[in-house]
Amino acid sequence: MARVVCDISISADGFATGVHQTLERPFGDGPVEQLHRWMFETPDENAAERAAIVAADAFIMGRNMFGPGRGEWDLEWSGWWGEDPPYHKPVYVLTHHERDDLPMRGGTTFHFITGGIEAALTRAVEATGDGTIAIAGGATTVNQFLAAGLIDELRLHIAPVVIGAGERLFDGVPPQGLEQISARVSTLVTHISYKINH
Amino acid sequence: MARVVCDISISADGFATGVHQTLERPFGDGPVEQLHRWMFETPDENAAERAAIVAADAFIMGRNMFGPGRGEWDLEWSGWWGEDPPYHKPVYVLTHHERDDLPMRGGTTFHFITGGIEAALTRAVEATGDGTIAIAGGATTVNQFLAAGLIDELRLHIAPVVIGAGERLFDGVPPQGLEQISARVSTLVTHISYKINH
Repeated sequence: MARVVCDISISADGFATGVHQTLERPFGDGPVEQLHRWMFETPDENAAERAAIVAADAFIMGRNMFGPGRGEWDLEWSGWWGEDPPYHKPVYVLTHHERDDLPMRGGTTFHFITGGIEAALTRAVEATGDGTIAIAGGATTVNQFLAAGLIDELRLHIAPVVIGAGERLFDGVPPQGLEQISARVSTLVTHISYKINH
Repeated sequence: MARVVCDISISADGFATGVHQTLERPFGDGPVEQLHRWMFETPDENAAERAAIVAADAFIMGRNMFGPGRGEWDLEWSGWWGEDPPYHKPVYVLTHHERDDLPMRGGTTFHFITGGIEAALTRAVEATGDGTIAIAGGATTVNQFLAAGLIDELRLHIAPVVIGAGERLFDGVPPQGLEQISARVSTLVTHISYKINH
């Protein structure tokens, strides 16, 4: 059976972004650069967690995670990651606007899904069989999957910062128990992994 | 100089209580019993953290932490903890209603402070000198102290549960950087300590 995992970096107060996300500031206002310092400034210290983020067999992401645009597609836009995105696998992008598949270098192909989270998950399962499917963000997409009970393992990367406003992880997610798998602190982040029993 | 610390148990989504707190359900609705299981079910595993919670030289708490009442005092009420509360030191209770000092067995004396958080802190500093002052909760009181920049060390005890609604830690606290001191996982909780630089 496919396993659905999710990695997300959040602040101590639970935000994955600030407010006012734009092309220039994809994570919005506030001290949001603190959220991902652990990845860029201490890569060796967090090598295992960084590797796990892109170790899945397929990925599902919200449109905001793919690009800053809204409404009809700007077909010149091919994601934030350049010609060779770090996924190297199929990536299913949730959108209300149809678009043809977009193959990139290195094995990443973006597929655009207009049928919602279940449709994206069905496509990902078809592509991967018993593989691992990663919900790649952002918080709004993760919250949809959490609320629907579709995530098996949630890996939080809690950065030492208070952001105060923005997209908050768990917004709209109903009360439920989690099971701690592990936690580890490194210089700029605390990693906590939860198993979600359905 | 006095050092101000704060311990608080929160859910993975950041709540310290559920909604609808009452005498019978002081932490409100939802799976709130999960918040403190680590203290009661795995005391030995968390002996150091439990000891630290009551190791201060003085304590400050909100009225809701002292009792369920609102408005004028029910003088029969002497706190949730029985005749010998676990503090064994002066405890300053924030309230809008004056009340005489309430000495208990074992060295705990409750002092009722109507002048707000700064007045309580001043009294605690006068009593302890260079000692440690603990902000004992609840979340509303902790948030007031955090927003005012009056806490030096924040120790989160993150329980593996989603509560969904209630009093949330960090509500109204402005954006700011924190400094990780330590983190440790045990069976039912992840402990994270932050230093707050002012």
